[in-house]
Amino acid sequence: MSEPSPVETMNIALEQMIPRAHQMGVTFVEMRPGYVRAELPFEGNGNHFGTVYAGVIFTLAEVLGGAMHFASFDASTHYPLIRGMQIRYLKPGRGALSASATLDAETIARVAAEAGSDGKAAFDLIAEVTDEAGVLVATTVGDYQIRPYGQ
Amino acid sequence: MSEPSPVETMNIALEQMIPRAHQMGVTFVEMRPGYVRAELPFEGNGNHFGTVYAGVIFTLAEVLGGAMHFASFDASTHYPLIRGMQIRYLKPGRGALSASATLDAETIARVAAEAGSDGKAAFDLIAEVTDEAGVLVATTVGDYQIRPYGQ
Repeated sequence: MSEPSPVETMNIALEQMIPRAHQMGVTFVEMRPGYVRAELPFEGNGNHFGTVYAGVIFTLAEVLGGAMHFASFDASTHYPLIRGMQIRYLKPGRGALSASATLDAETIARVAAEAGSDGKAAFDLIAEVTDEAGVLVATTVGDYQIRPYGQ
Repeated sequence: MSEPSPVETMNIALEQMIPRAHQMGVTFVEMRPGYVRAELPFEGNGNHFGTVYAGVIFTLAEVLGGAMHFASFDASTHYPLIRGMQIRYLKPGRGALSASATLDAETIARVAAEAGSDGKAAFDLIAEVTDEAGVLVATTVGDYQIRPYGQ
């Protein structure tokens, strides 16, 4: 057996770490330094308008912050924390959704340098949520911080 | 049997309207024109930090917008819609949480007048999420709109 990929590891971790997000069917599908993407089924996540509920869309975008941490920073010394988020709903999400976020190399280098081995550092993460046709459903700006374990 | 109260009606409706929020255990406990409050158990809503997951706190605050609509506006002509939300996480939520929101009489009158019987109107709703000791865990500013049915 080969080692599980970062994406497989994150999906196993999500079930243990955030059971409610796992219950919604949030699944990481791509993870590499500076880029993460997750998907969500429609089933069970709808509301009375027949669209994906706002709090589920928020969750799909929010979990990208933790995934970006594991993809881009040193998870052996630091953990990620959300301090705030702005979400804009642009179009109703009518089916399965996908959310992705990018962090540029300069920001990754700045955060890593600021955090060092035992310090804190913050970054904004912009995420886009799209439907199966590629229509932009929501955008988020998350205010994340990475912290050394124990702080 | 007496008529169900607005709070009882909203809790029955939530299960049908937003199954994911109902699953989290979100329960409305107070509703009157200009004031709504909901509660959330810790059970099932935690994360790996032993605190309530960010997306669950968001949901607890977000559902107040719909409850405020039913408590304060004409639900026979209009439905509520969320267009965006800003959330700030201030302290970890370590147990059961409560969220409340207030809408002043002037804003209610302005929105009702703007919406009339067939128009749209928007309002910002500020909510506070507190723990059992009354500590402020999160604040939200939701951008809601009420729309006539069919629009």
